[in-house]
Amino acid sequence: MKFSPLVDELIKTLQCLPGVGPRSAQRMTFQLLERDRVAGQKLGQALSNAMSDVGHCSRCRTFTEQELCPICASSRRGESGQICVVESPADVLAIETSGQFSGRYFVLMGHLSPLDGLGPDEIGLDKLAALIREEQPQELILATNPTVEGDATAQYIAEMCRDDNIRVSRIAHGVPVGGELEYVDGTTLALSLTGRREL
Amino acid sequence: MKFSPLVDELIKTLQCLPGVGPRSAQRMTFQLLERDRVAGQKLGQALSNAMSDVGHCSRCRTFTEQELCPICASSRRGESGQICVVESPADVLAIETSGQFSGRYFVLMGHLSPLDGLGPDEIGLDKLAALIREEQPQELILATNPTVEGDATAQYIAEMCRDDNIRVSRIAHGVPVGGELEYVDGTTLALSLTGRREL
Repeated sequence: MKFSPLVDELIKTLQCLPGVGPRSAQRMTFQLLERDRVAGQKLGQALSNAMSDVGHCSRCRTFTEQELCPICASSRRGESGQICVVESPADVLAIETSGQFSGRYFVLMGHLSPLDGLGPDEIGLDKLAALIREEQPQELILATNPTVEGDATAQYIAEMCRDDNIRVSRIAHGVPVGGELEYVDGTTLALSLTGRREL
Repeated sequence: MKFSPLVDELIKTLQCLPGVGPRSAQRMTFQLLERDRVAGQKLGQALSNAMSDVGHCSRCRTFTEQELCPICASSRRGESGQICVVESPADVLAIETSGQFSGRYFVLMGHLSPLDGLGPDEIGLDKLAALIREEQPQELILATNPTVEGDATAQYIAEMCRDDNIRVSRIAHGVPVGGELEYVDGTTLALSLTGRREL
């Protein structure tokens, strides 16, 4: 025995969070129990709600509990005729913060990684192809991470779109190679958008 | 707008956890949504259960959802006639891990801190006095933290028990085992010298 069952259970389950080990889980548990049970209740509720109700946007695959995410639902965002392809919802936020892009997104939810069983269909490239045929955008901006996998994924998508009448560009490598898009500052990200090159 | 309402809500509420800022809250949210919704559901449930059901042990004040915590409920733990006074439930675990103590505990859930409005009653010293009268233990071991507040609290409790027929002791201060003498601060070293024992 360590603590009582419910406390033990909370300490154990908190460790499913990234970066939380036994010691910080214990600290979190006591902090919530001692100081802020209301916040703990709210967090429990928010977790349950999000886990059960959040799905994927039917157009761009980002996380949302509605049929369409707010960006896809806004008609103004469709005017530019640009689609920005990113790996994760966090990347959408990073690009939104840069203020340089007013089109819509397509979120791969990963990158091509055959060894992990992530092929074109797993990252939704079939959906992307259908989307391109349907929306006939003027430009596809490939903003996958500047990593080996991200670059390969961008190359694959560019290849896929060769026969469509569409401009395909890759964000400029003003962003440090080997980094992750999510952690790049807004200015660098803005520069990499304006400096994009045709593939 | 950043993400959809439920996702935003989860990112915001996760920041009630100590040591979790906006960026790690975002990482936790996406990790759970992408990889482990079952664990997220479990965590939500564990949080709700713990926040609503966990109360304090009616004897020692530690966290438990039962009337008595497992240690207070065990009759074997009452045999030594010792009560160890600690500041927090985490301290109970630390002492249990040392394997040197087989008595029961009393958890103050804090320390005397008049400026924060924490007087003797707030840390349960009235309950401790009643417990001593009722259980007539042989020894009270004061294991509050070796800080100014912890020392003051220990002094206060020792004073309070002066008229009871009970041995009151304080855990030894000294150099930690495995450390190097040259890096130990002066106060600790001074205490370890005045508290020296004959071999």
